[in-house]
Amino acid sequence: MSAVNATWPTTLADPVAGPLREVVHHFEEELRSDQPIVRELCARLAVYRGKMLRPMLLLLTAEAGGGVRREHITLAAVVELVHMATLVHDDVLDEAELRRRTATINRLHGNEAAVLLGDYLISHAYHLCSSLGSQHAARRIAATTNTVCEGELMQVAQRGNWSLTEEQYLDIIRRKTASLTAVCCELGAHFAGMDADAVGRMSGFGADIGMAFQIVDDLLDLTGDETQVGKPVGRDAALGKLTLPLIHALCRAEPADRERMIERLDAGRFRLNGHHAPIRDGLDYAASMARSFVQSAVARLSDLPSSDARDALAAAAEFVLRRRA
Amino acid sequence: MSAVNATWPTTLADPVAGPLREVVHHFEEELRSDQPIVRELCARLAVYRGKMLRPMLLLLTAEAGGGVRREHITLAAVVELVHMATLVHDDVLDEAELRRRTATINRLHGNEAAVLLGDYLISHAYHLCSSLGSQHAARRIAATTNTVCEGELMQVAQRGNWSLTEEQYLDIIRRKTASLTAVCCELGAHFAGMDADAVGRMSGFGADIGMAFQIVDDLLDLTGDETQVGKPVGRDAALGKLTLPLIHALCRAEPADRERMIERLDAGRFRLNGHHAPIRDGLDYAASMARSFVQSAVARLSDLPSSDARDALAAAAEFVLRRRA
Repeated sequence: MSAVNATWPTTLADPVAGPLREVVHHFEEELRSDQPIVRELCARLAVYRGKMLRPMLLLLTAEAGGGVRREHITLAAVVELVHMATLVHDDVLDEAELRRRTATINRLHGNEAAVLLGDYLISHAYHLCSSLGSQHAARRIAATTNTVCEGELMQVAQRGNWSLTEEQYLDIIRRKTASLTAVCCELGAHFAGMDADAVGRMSGFGADIGMAFQIVDDLLDLTGDETQVGKPVGRDAALGKLTLPLIHALCRAEPADRERMIERLDAGRFRLNGHHAPIRDGLDYAASMARSFVQSAVARLSDLPSSDARDALAAAAEFVLRRRA
Repeated sequence: MSAVNATWPTTLADPVAGPLREVVHHFEEELRSDQPIVRELCARLAVYRGKMLRPMLLLLTAEAGGGVRREHITLAAVVELVHMATLVHDDVLDEAELRRRTATINRLHGNEAAVLLGDYLISHAYHLCSSLGSQHAARRIAATTNTVCEGELMQVAQRGNWSLTEEQYLDIIRRKTASLTAVCCELGAHFAGMDADAVGRMSGFGADIGMAFQIVDDLLDLTGDETQVGKPVGRDAALGKLTLPLIHALCRAEPADRERMIERLDAGRFRLNGHHAPIRDGLDYAASMARSFVQSAVARLSDLPSSDARDALAAAAEFVLRRRA
């Protein structure tokens, strides 16, 4: 398979195309098993493993910061294993039946197998991590997965809370999504030998990209084209997950309007009406916040020496706003 | 709470009572969170955390092998976190509603929260592990959780397979249960400074105890007293999980008898009849195999210098056969 899915410009990964192929190899080696059931489930993961955004961010940061080393290859496989585990468990939580246009693992093999496959992936992530010379990466990755789980738990606790504030929403996505992209860039920079300030800036770059990515993801759930996105849209509202456009719309709507919206959300029959002024404003507001995060991300690259990898990081940040899947 | 549940003789843990209290403290410190949902879910874990068998095995091995060190306290909390994670996820897989006489987390908070709490626990296990000076323990723990997940996946893949062999059953329980008790004793011995042979023997002790423990667990599901066990019995057969007594009974029964048993299993209305000869033989066979594993475990202790901790390990092994919960 190609390392980067066609929905992303493959050129973004050009400066690290070789290392990315090694990451895929590492990933597959780590999951090799003599058990048919394990092999069958892991084979399905190839479909999930699309954009390889996180390994790409980690490797591009490494390349831009001094060069890709052995540790980066291992860590890029680790973060992809972590990410895959969250996807597999997310699909169980959301009772999702489709991902990237094909049946999810829970749909095909049941929730039991999907829960266990997620556990298997996270276990292998730490197994791979423990092959590194120092504990530094393991400590940072584990602290990050602690944070990701907290974010996911907070999201579950807030399901059906139509008074969720923008601040709470941003806190949740910072934990569940941005913490992982942040640690990708942080570890890419750290193991390339960058100084503490530069590592901090790259961590901030990764966090900004993660925030933008999640806001756009949530926008696509509302406005995306199902055939492009590769899974049903409108799931968030149906599952009681309030995202930025609706939070903003509910906040700004007239009381009567707000009540009608909540009635529909409660009944699980909320449908997007882009002509409805508060909704239109909410969508614009979310898109503009995603844009701000991308601008902030790109600004954080200014101290890096110019290189193809730096340009690719900037292009990746910009692309987050244009993606349709 | 008392560190060891009343269903286990508290005297078993006497030689390591102090360290065990430190483990509980470590465990609770690691799970401390500012998020109400996390605090609420973790508070429920106190009910799950009953026997503390794995920390006890780790600490007693350490004590018998040269003395409990700092690393042992950390690792005992790590293995308990891993064990708790498997319990929480197992209850989701088995749709269990009761554990230790109280409602399970999935029953109280839904499957989503239970899946995420399991993830949170495993993440914290690795986070705690990464605080140790070397990667050795992390590598061994991760290799073990890989094996545990494989065992669980194999078990799910074999659900409803009424031709499961004894060999396959033993392979599954060796992975899903015995691998964790083995690594407890292995790490207890390793960090107490025992030589490689002695570490290997203690790993074998832990594996034997784990095998006996799981066989007795499966026996209790068939013959246990629901009020003592603290959860419904007969679940394994209802969930399509064949265990040693039934494997043996099916294997030895006359063809017509076997067919009738399978019909009942298929229809989910298998009821234990202890007067039925093949079943009675199957129960005896499983009990005698558990006894053999315990004898093998105790024999492996013979090279240890005599101490209260060594006696407690032997007593713990013996107690596995007598436990009713």
